[in-house]
Amino acid sequence: MSWLPSLITPPTPPEEGYALAIKLSRMAVKMTQPDDDVRGELRADYANDADSLTAVSQVVATNFQTVAQANNYWRD
Amino acid sequence: MSWLPSLITPPTPPEEGYALAIKLSRMAVKMTQPDDDVRGELRADYANDADSLTAVSQVVATNFQTVAQANNYWRD
Amino acid sequence: MSWLPSLITPPTPPEEGYALAIKLSRMAVKMTQPDDDVRGELRADYANDADSLTAVSQVVATNFQTVAQANNYWRD
Amino acid sequence: MSWLPSLITPPTPPEEGYALAIKLSRMAVKMTQPDDDVRGELRADYANDADSLTAVSQVVATNFQTVAQANNYWRD
Amino acid sequence: MSWLPSLITPPTPPEEGYALAIKLSRMAVKMTQPDDDVRGELRADYANDADSLTAVSQVVATNFQTVAQANNYWRD
Amino acid sequence: MSWLPSLITPPTPPEEGYALAIKLSRMAVKMTQPDDDVRGELRADYANDADSLTAVSQVVATNFQTVAQANNYWRD
Repeated sequence: MSWLPSLITPPTPPEEGYALAIKLSRMAVKMTQPDDDVRGELRADYANDADSLTAVSQVVATNFQTVAQANNYWRD
Repeated sequence: MSWLPSLITPPTPPEEGYALAIKLSRMAVKMTQPDDDVRGELRADYANDADSLTAVSQVVATNFQTVAQANNYWRD
Repeated sequence: MSWLPSLITPPTPPEEGYALAIKLSRMAVKMTQPDDDVRGELRADYANDADSLTAVSQVVATNFQTVAQANNYWRD
Repeated sequence: MSWLPSLITPPTPPEEGYALAIKLSRMAVKMTQPDDDVRGELRADYANDADSLTAVSQVVATNFQTVAQANNYWRD
Repeated sequence: MSWLPSLITPPTPPEEGYALAIKLSRMAVKMTQPDDDVRGELRADYANDADSLTAVSQVVATNFQTVAQANNYWRD
Repeated sequence: MSWLPSLITPPTPPEEGYALAIKLSRMAVKMTQPDDDVRGELRADYANDADSLTAVSQVVATNFQTVAQANNYWRD
């Protein structure tokens, strides 16, 4: 089973597209650091640091652009 | 009720689209750090730091691109 | 009166579109830190730091992309 | 044999496009630091640092935009 | 005289469009720090720091996207 | 002779487009710090630092978007 079978999410609401953007953002981290325990320990570092959270939000924003374009902004 | 029922904001003015871009920027932070108290404490960190504020503005700019495209730049 | 009645600026020159990009960049900061005095104090921090100024320029560049697209690059 | 014969990946799933985005992200690093041993040593630095992993994810997100556009978002 | 009369540069070569991207990148800095002397002093900071130069290059890359799109990538 | 006579690279493979993206990324650095010796000394700083290499890869990714768009993603 592919972890990314499609970029197309259900037509409404775009909330699911945003969730996919978060998934895409996390996957690059997971592929770079596959150890679940290490990632778990790192979580405390970025989840409690304002600038780290902003950086995470920047990645999500970039991926959300891609997903939103793929879905034609859920206009229809 | 979805927190993001649509990317389409009312036709005028684009000010509401900008507000949506801010909402999108904050949501990734909220989903990464769901604890309201922790986020509240972190607020003092970034709201009083010039570079942190610039980074926040960068995320908003990226999300505003998406919302503006979704709304065809409110041209009509 | 809306602070952002339109993304469309006069047809020539694109200089006004650039000014709008700066306005958009500052508005996210203002909405995150509404206190004028605090922002005034922070100004010395980023206006005298090379990397901070580059980061500001990055935000403006991103917003200028949006405004330029909205105005069809002032081609006509 | 070219390391990048095409940006077009098989039509389904977009997972292969994401893998290409990771390859593109790593290639710039490899071309800037061609020494395999040095890159191997640096890996511990970024694979165990939350902010470094977020920065890697940002690069992947940017390259994934390009690959997704090249493949018309695997819509068909 | 406008400092930015047009985003359209001569058809060939795109080198002039790149020069415009650099001008756009510097203008945001100039508008944020109008004092020529201060900017001159800051120059030593970023012109001799690898990461600062990379950040400058990132801003130029973003503005070059805009100028290249405005000129239809100088395809014709 | 222009250093950038065209954004259009040969139709296959896109590897040459990627090389152009690297050239574009380096040119902004060169124009900001024209001294070859200084740039040579700085090279050790970023070629041996994981985060610096990631930042370089981010600039290349942004420029590669531009070159890939200019070449219609080498689809034909």
